[in-house]
Amino acid sequence: MSIKEELLQIAKQAKRASRVLANLSSLEKNKALQEMAFRLEQNVEKIKEENKKDIEDARKKGLSSALIDRLTLNDKRIAKLSASLREISSLEDPVGKVESMWKRPNGLLIGKVIVPLGVIGIIYESRPNVTVDAAALCLKAGNAVILRGGSEAIRSNCVLVDILTEALKNTNVPPESIQLIRTTSREAVMQMLKMDEYIDVIIPRGGESLIRAVTENSTIPVIKHYKGVCHTFVDKDADLTMAEKICFNAKVQRPGVCNAMETLLVDEAIAEKFLPGMIKKFQEAGVEIRGDEKVRKIIPGVKEASEEDWFTEYLDLILSVKIVKGIKEAIEHINFYGSHHSDAIITANYAKAKKFLQEVDSAAVYVNASTRFTDGGEFGMGAEIGISTQKLHARGPMGVAELTSRKFIILGEGQIRG
Amino acid sequence: MSIKEELLQIAKQAKRASRVLANLSSLEKNKALQEMAFRLEQNVEKIKEENKKDIEDARKKGLSSALIDRLTLNDKRIAKLSASLREISSLEDPVGKVESMWKRPNGLLIGKVIVPLGVIGIIYESRPNVTVDAAALCLKAGNAVILRGGSEAIRSNCVLVDILTEALKNTNVPPESIQLIRTTSREAVMQMLKMDEYIDVIIPRGGESLIRAVTENSTIPVIKHYKGVCHTFVDKDADLTMAEKICFNAKVQRPGVCNAMETLLVDEAIAEKFLPGMIKKFQEAGVEIRGDEKVRKIIPGVKEASEEDWFTEYLDLILSVKIVKGIKEAIEHINFYGSHHSDAIITANYAKAKKFLQEVDSAAVYVNASTRFTDGGEFGMGAEIGISTQKLHARGPMGVAELTSRKFIILGEGQIRG
Repeated sequence: MSIKEELLQIAKQAKRASRVLANLSSLEKNKALQEMAFRLEQNVEKIKEENKKDIEDARKKGLSSALIDRLTLNDKRIAKLSASLREISSLEDPVGKVESMWKRPNGLLIGKVIVPLGVIGIIYESRPNVTVDAAALCLKAGNAVILRGGSEAIRSNCVLVDILTEALKNTNVPPESIQLIRTTSREAVMQMLKMDEYIDVIIPRGGESLIRAVTENSTIPVIKHYKGVCHTFVDKDADLTMAEKICFNAKVQRPGVCNAMETLLVDEAIAEKFLPGMIKKFQEAGVEIRGDEKVRKIIPGVKEASEEDWFTEYLDLILSVKIVKGIKEAIEHINFYGSHHSDAIITANYAKAKKFLQEVDSAAVYVNASTRFTDGGEFGMGAEIGISTQKLHARGPMGVAELTSRKFIILGEGQIRG
Repeated sequence: MSIKEELLQIAKQAKRASRVLANLSSLEKNKALQEMAFRLEQNVEKIKEENKKDIEDARKKGLSSALIDRLTLNDKRIAKLSASLREISSLEDPVGKVESMWKRPNGLLIGKVIVPLGVIGIIYESRPNVTVDAAALCLKAGNAVILRGGSEAIRSNCVLVDILTEALKNTNVPPESIQLIRTTSREAVMQMLKMDEYIDVIIPRGGESLIRAVTENSTIPVIKHYKGVCHTFVDKDADLTMAEKICFNAKVQRPGVCNAMETLLVDEAIAEKFLPGMIKKFQEAGVEIRGDEKVRKIIPGVKEASEEDWFTEYLDLILSVKIVKGIKEAIEHINFYGSHHSDAIITANYAKAKKFLQEVDSAAVYVNASTRFTDGGEFGMGAEIGISTQKLHARGPMGVAELTSRKFIILGEGQIRG
């Protein structure tokens, strides 16, 4: 079978399964999620065995320890996957809810109902935990899923999907609802991106080049999970003790994630007072500082930030720092150089807080809090499939509710159009 | 200036304008819409003059009378455009509404606010009325717009956009909010589709080949307005008098539009009773019937429907007719051959009505009414920019509310992540 034929078969099976899934009750879907959790617990050794082979290959290939860490499944992490499946089963099911219904002058009753999207394609890094979480979130919202994980995790993904689909055989959810692309060739992704007849949406997660390749080649609508170049602007009216605490948290608490701060903007009126202590704290925590001209005047020895730095998501203990004339320049900088992910102002001034919230064009805009909170769980939306950085369909953390569409139902008694 | 440079300039101007527009009040936007209406009325002769040149060229090119009719602007139609602008100015402004706001255990207040999409690109046929309506709907929702109309309407579009942007000079809305691509070369569209840095969404309206070309080449998210292969299924429990009235209306009242019926499905139990009278009525109205084997047994002389017919949007007085075993086969046929636009069941049976509403995977699903009602105005949603046939972001009639996105605002008092 050619790769194209293989993909076509996968896509057709998923489409068929999605039609069954769309009509199942919440109880039937939740039972399946619980069965999946149980089966993972029953197969810990088998999972670890396959995962070990992936890790060995990754070591031979010389992958970084950070990547190998993301690839690794151990007892604790497998238990966490089961817990996550049970948590997803306990979330509210959005499907079937009539959001609104109204009567027209001619007597037609028109309602807007939440329905599943259909078939969701997910392209992601070598993180086997995403395989389980993504499958579960899609299933909860009544969608079939086609998974394409990073090649380094292929054995782990195969064994996980085998276990999950085996679990579904005891339930009313068709096992074909969870599909994995088992060939690691790049051609498979290219084929997948052209199957707009069968796949309703593609969600790519990962680096800039992957996202670019997907958007450039897909004829299927894409929900981008792009980089986070997040800013914190310390206004001259900020409580500087609060500002220091928030900035430190936003940069240092977990620097490798998309909602961590990459650029610090400081009002020139308080720069001399605020920056020396703040930068010292960062440097003590091992953060490399790259500053503009004005910053380097205040703190000699700081490395110079290039134009490129302002666009960069470091995902590391590096921070670019810029002194701005005030809120206007801060907002302009954020809207121009940022990635429209998460940005914060620290201020005690009501008008400036309101202006920042209104004018910063990002998925999440903060006053007096760390950008690290941009996360489905922290927002109280439950588990998330990722954080959308585009404006269409879903923006910010995407949970179960964002994996749905709508349809209109129209109830008449013989109405015709005049 | 090369086409690429020209497009880049247009896109950059639109982006800049969109940032201003996003922060204007409803009053400021409504004043601009009213000013636009007034200026159209002041320039009727100028518009007709340019439009006349377009029509002359179209005649020389041998365009069909239907296309020339769509291209034509006369006093009555220009008055209607002004009326439409005033109607849009009186619609509710969705922007700025906080849809929901909640407090987290750590005290963070999180709100979800409706914001404009940003810059919207619209690619459409040679219909100058769309130029005005689309610009107005985008503006109402706080978006800048880049218009690319069919080449036959280029002079009409230029004069209309000149008048509209001139009108904006007396208002707080930047004239750069309404952009028209004035070169008619295809390359301009290709350039436009790659400007994902500046354009947030592309809405293509038109034929199948245009939509295909756009989705295949765009790196910007696309909201498809695809064909309508709409069905009516007459169940054996239908009131056959009502069924005849609805089917006739769905096919004949305006056959050239996307919500007109293209395929009639009839339950075999009532086919012999229902079809002879129904088909006679259709034939008297000039409708060509293409039937399956069973239909042709009941009504001799009916043309045979090919496999291709079931997929076809005729937009004409042609109807394909199929006899099915019951609701299951009807739903399978609709989900397989249909375009997921608008489909209806005619039945007096409660369980079958419920099943049809649940299982038909279309933007609008009807019980006992004509599919011709799928329309923003008829649904009570106000003027529409089109009818989306995809599941992402907006499905069915798209009005002002669908031309928006969301952002999260997070109000803290020093919260950091633990």
